Amino acid sequence: MKKTLLFLSLLAAPALAGEGKWTPQQVLELDPAWLKAQGLQVPPTRLWDPKRGTGLLAGAVNVGGCTGAFISESGLIITNHHCAFPIIQEHSSPARDLITQGYLAKGREEELPGKGARVQVPRRFTDVTKEMMAAVPAGADDLARQKALERKSKELVAECEKRPATRCRVAGFDDGLQFVLIDSVELADVRLVYAPPRAVGEYGGEEDNWMWPRHTGDFSIIRAYTAPDGTAAQYSAQNVPYKAEFFFPLATEGVKPDDFVMVLGYPGTTFRALLADDMAERQARYYPRVVDVYGELIRILDEEGEKDPAGKILVASNLKAMHNRHKNAGGQLAGLKRGHIVEKQREAEAAVVVWAEKRPEYAGALKARAELLALHSEQAKTFEREFLLDTLRAVKGPSLAVTLARLAQERTKPDLERQPEFMERELPRLKDRLEREQKNFFAPADKRSLLALVRRAQGLGEGERIAAIDKSFGRTYSEKEVSAKIDALYAGSKVLDLAERQKMAGETEAQLRARKDALLDLGFELAVEQAALDELRDRRLGATVRLMPEWRRAVLAHAGKPVAPDANSTLRVTFAKVKGYTPRDGAFYTPQTTLAGVMEKHTGQEPFDVPAKVAAAAEAKRYGPWMDKRLKDVPVNFLADADTTGGNSGSPTVNGKGQLVGVNFDRVWENVANDFGYNPEVARNVSVDVRYVLWLLDQVEDADGLLRELGVRKGPKAGERR
Amino acid sequence: MKKTLLFLSLLAAPALAGEGKWTPQQVLELDPAWLKAQGLQVPPTRLWDPKRGTGLLAGAVNVGGCTGAFISESGLIITNHHCAFPIIQEHSSPARDLITQGYLAKGREEELPGKGARVQVPRRFTDVTKEMMAAVPAGADDLARQKALERKSKELVAECEKRPATRCRVAGFDDGLQFVLIDSVELADVRLVYAPPRAVGEYGGEEDNWMWPRHTGDFSIIRAYTAPDGTAAQYSAQNVPYKAEFFFPLATEGVKPDDFVMVLGYPGTTFRALLADDMAERQARYYPRVVDVYGELIRILDEEGEKDPAGKILVASNLKAMHNRHKNAGGQLAGLKRGHIVEKQREAEAAVVVWAEKRPEYAGALKARAELLALHSEQAKTFEREFLLDTLRAVKGPSLAVTLARLAQERTKPDLERQPEFMERELPRLKDRLEREQKNFFAPADKRSLLALVRRAQGLGEGERIAAIDKSFGRTYSEKEVSAKIDALYAGSKVLDLAERQKMAGETEAQLRARKDALLDLGFELAVEQAALDELRDRRLGATVRLMPEWRRAVLAHAGKPVAPDANSTLRVTFAKVKGYTPRDGAFYTPQTTLAGVMEKHTGQEPFDVPAKVAAAAEAKRYGPWMDKRLKDVPVNFLADADTTGGNSGSPTVNGKGQLVGVNFDRVWENVANDFGYNPEVARNVSVDVRYVLWLLDQVEDADGLLRELGVRKGPKAGERR
Repeated sequence: MKKTLLFLSLLAAPALAGEGKWTPQQVLELDPAWLKAQGLQVPPTRLWDPKRGTGLLAGAVNVGGCTGAFISESGLIITNHHCAFPIIQEHSSPARDLITQGYLAKGREEELPGKGARVQVPRRFTDVTKEMMAAVPAGADDLARQKALERKSKELVAECEKRPATRCRVAGFDDGLQFVLIDSVELADVRLVYAPPRAVGEYGGEEDNWMWPRHTGDFSIIRAYTAPDGTAAQYSAQNVPYKAEFFFPLATEGVKPDDFVMVLGYPGTTFRALLADDMAERQARYYPRVVDVYGELIRILDEEGEKDPAGKILVASNLKAMHNRHKNAGGQLAGLKRGHIVEKQREAEAAVVVWAEKRPEYAGALKARAELLALHSEQAKTFEREFLLDTLRAVKGPSLAVTLARLAQERTKPDLERQPEFMERELPRLKDRLEREQKNFFAPADKRSLLALVRRAQGLGEGERIAAIDKSFGRTYSEKEVSAKIDALYAGSKVLDLAERQKMAGETEAQLRARKDALLDLGFELAVEQAALDELRDRRLGATVRLMPEWRRAVLAHAGKPVAPDANSTLRVTFAKVKGYTPRDGAFYTPQTTLAGVMEKHTGQEPFDVPAKVAAAAEAKRYGPWMDKRLKDVPVNFLADADTTGGNSGSPTVNGKGQLVGVNFDRVWENVANDFGYNPEVARNVSVDVRYVLWLLDQVEDADGLLRELGVRKGPKAGERR
Repeated sequence: MKKTLLFLSLLAAPALAGEGKWTPQQVLELDPAWLKAQGLQVPPTRLWDPKRGTGLLAGAVNVGGCTGAFISESGLIITNHHCAFPIIQEHSSPARDLITQGYLAKGREEELPGKGARVQVPRRFTDVTKEMMAAVPAGADDLARQKALERKSKELVAECEKRPATRCRVAGFDDGLQFVLIDSVELADVRLVYAPPRAVGEYGGEEDNWMWPRHTGDFSIIRAYTAPDGTAAQYSAQNVPYKAEFFFPLATEGVKPDDFVMVLGYPGTTFRALLADDMAERQARYYPRVVDVYGELIRILDEEGEKDPAGKILVASNLKAMHNRHKNAGGQLAGLKRGHIVEKQREAEAAVVVWAEKRPEYAGALKARAELLALHSEQAKTFEREFLLDTLRAVKGPSLAVTLARLAQERTKPDLERQPEFMERELPRLKDRLEREQKNFFAPADKRSLLALVRRAQGLGEGERIAAIDKSFGRTYSEKEVSAKIDALYAGSKVLDLAERQKMAGETEAQLRARKDALLDLGFELAVEQAALDELRDRRLGATVRLMPEWRRAVLAHAGKPVAPDANSTLRVTFAKVKGYTPRDGAFYTPQTTLAGVMEKHTGQEPFDVPAKVAAAAEAKRYGPWMDKRLKDVPVNFLADADTTGGNSGSPTVNGKGQLVGVNFDRVWENVANDFGYNPEVARNVSVDVRYVLWLLDQVEDADGLLRELGVRKGPKAGERR
């Protein structure tokens, strides 16, 4: 990796111990003495070798939007149950319900391939800021700037991906202050090895989601395969397990309070660099709207799913995602308020402004900030319209129709000029989605969801109308009429027929239009608005990339210490301690939970229905070697003050020696708003304790083969009382 | 007080530090060295002087079913907000809403007299076991035995009450192992001095009731008055404040974790001596029925109250009591299950049985136990009927009608032969109630409640029918018909007219029957069944008093240590420490809450709507001298492991020097079932910290006069920022 643009020449400690989603390169800029004092027992260069541009951190891999971690040399990966859920769901049917029962492959031949499941292992990071900046023509306006950057990025990616089975991306840091080309191997043959019963993997369900105390075994184990020659390949019976250079051996002794841990992974998006006014806007409008609209969609999916067992399976995955998003939005609102985050950002921003006003070299930063504020206040005017257009993607009917329409249109363009998601390299993924969505499509729920969004669209003000909706359903509201129109739309369409849809995916716009499929026609109408919105957003991005780096330079210089850039789905590491917290006056949350706590919550009803085999082992106190001596019980989950966010799901939680002590799967409710700011009082991530994983495999599942492969001494047989 | 019947000659420590609602006499049987080690700094004989039969414990007084405590020599009493609520409600109207606003008398002339509010100050305790036992004729059957005991008790009380303004009672301990005549002065002129706004006194409302962390200022201050000569008297403008011999000065330094405290008071009823089978029956039937029936009545009062602001005030007091009872029942069920209390009692009982079987002198105890079990299994057969007859008392229409009918009938008997509640000495109280109930009567709610109970009565099995209900409403159910009949019943009755009802209270049965008032006639019908049930219960009591002491003798001898008798609304003291607890795996509740926690819960909506003046002082951190140095905030509530129950509401929580540190007002949810057994893990009572009381009076209310009287240095003026 080339030299970064960071303005620090001296090694330094961060402002707050737990704060910071550090890039691999930044780890080397932190004071090694500080890291050692925190508890890191390996040299920082084992985490990341600047010469090779890789290291132990690369043992954390990207698993379809989640993180996973190699835990054996032969390609075993541990991630969250909810991250492996698509594979589990794919192999489930009412007759063979792996979701409910869980699954343990007794040998390699029983490992279940996951369609569309992919693992990306990072290989190289290259700073391409100069190349990117050089691509912007002099005098380009904001749209042209963004288009030029996008094109350059595509070119760099295309060049990079010439190597087989390679996925590349250009990631922007600090809104364009730095661009890095990330080169990863993509493993396309990924198989399910072990999933606990859903009642373990999702114990507590939506009720406990984002909550502490927690008792969830939210993990699954998968395995990546390659061709016999070690190169990445599609599924084949001849494939062999991937040989992992970096992996995390399991730390069978676990963790205790105040222990040092690292959480490695691919945190998705955070907003800590947002201007205070933009944070305030999200607080005032965006999250309340998510709570409202997704609340309604959840009710619809719930109600329709209840009417039909098959429907319930079809809506399960979407429902889960929606619940998660909905509860997250509520948590953001509560946390923004509780943490006075907007006010703090306003103060911090004011301090930078005062500081910069005294330094002529930052006059540009101040001007950039003023321009950003003006642009964002303009942008707020069409917020409701854009929110609804985005939310329409959650409804399969119109969403698939738009995808088909845009695919036909975009495909006529040269590859480098297409919207990124329609480029050749994305088409296999897109086709997977067109197929996989059939598993998530349940007509009654989908139609009612569309009805709900159309009703909302009909309430939009002038200047914010969605023309496609107005054209199809009229501007005035009559629920009965709209509902009848939607019924007709779906009944008369082939879009929701898998075989037909796959055919459509290969047709031209003319062929599609000739079908006279009204839902497809709606898709074309919506595609027009979508394309216009894409362009508008490109223009905004161009402005951001022009202005934000100016402002961020001032912010970073003012800080005078390493500041981790906002999350952007790239590899990061956070250094933390195992610790509890005070959720509210009069209560303290201790940092570990136990098997006894699992049983304490057991009601026999979802979401607290402990599977009989788990309950039997717990009640017999058949702990094997997995008992924590201090707790006198098997530890189940633990807290640490790591700086995580969505995308860190499945992240390895690793001790100072680089051994796996847990699998990160959540943040606590009080910490949801840390996306906007780190609050050491309540910044807590939740991990499954590795000893709970081992206890389940050993005492409940008798998974001898798997334990042997993990190099773990097996306890007495599950059947034996001790 | 004469020598008790306790079987311990040596001074001893109890089995568990916090366990035991000790009688005043038992305090002297506990090891003084143990008490000193716990933290008692005054000699036990200051708590209770065996020569005088009184002491500091008598500073805790009975305030209409609650406890109160003298806190000044001039009759000031602190108790709970909910205990003084009837006086507050009496002086409230939509125009002058003291419930909402609270009240502070600026001088003595502004103190508000409470109709029917009475304070009983204990004066003397005399063991009368021998006299009671001697009164039972040889060969008496169970009914005759109970009647004889009741008559003797009445005679003893009548003799005792010859002294003016005296209330006496014969209290049975250990189901008749001991009887004590308790002689108290009754003060009938009681006035409201200070009540905080309801939003302070009931902060958290039903949501926080029985819960921790808690932030409720559940206290009020009243004052007892006497005639100028110091004798108890009815209200008169000439009356003067009562001179209290014993009172608890306020401990302005408060408490901290692990501090020793005592809670003094009048705990109502506990069930720790119940046989395990009887506990099991209460768990299986009684509490579930309370949850079910009171749950329905609460819904009715809620719904009807919402329709009418005046109705909402009328149902408020009853609704509060019902909520409390309903939530309590839920807590008993949860706690019985969680604490495995029935199983533990079964084991303890089995141990006594095994022990007694080896000792011929306890053959009678084993026989008594067997007979009790047989009797109780017989009694269970009519449980549903009796439960409904009892619950009918919660409905004002039939309840007032039955009271009038029985009053007319009982009054024709010689005083000593009447049911206790209709004896001459009770009539002023009964007439108060007949009047006061008008403040709680809201016809729409009352009629719907009756409808609900009639519907349930119509579902009773053969052998359990309530003849009066069958006669008035028919045996088969038609909600519409029954509802119409109830409307007619109420419309045609004068029972619910205050003036008419007061007239009726003086009429004979013939006069009442001549009124041809259908609701009164229903009252006479129900009175027949009530009287029969009273007799049946007397017979059961006679059996209990014959058998239980035999069994208890074995239990106490087997224990070999002091065992406090079950609560029976007599004066008790419990020794405790300030401490937190673990409510569930992963959480610890710290023992103190603060003003910051009050504000943290504030939503601006009931039940979390902090009054503006309180919020202003809290937000300005205007703590005065009431800040706890460790907490850096004003402490609001605290936990201790005292052994309390209902009736302990308003109990003084006192430090080792005998100074008031708090006002007990609740137990935690996990501890509700301690009525059946003390569990040191979760046995926690909740007190208002005296510093919150002082902070409110000082910084919020500017109650200088009151603070001066309490001997408390005043902080800076409430208006001054510091």
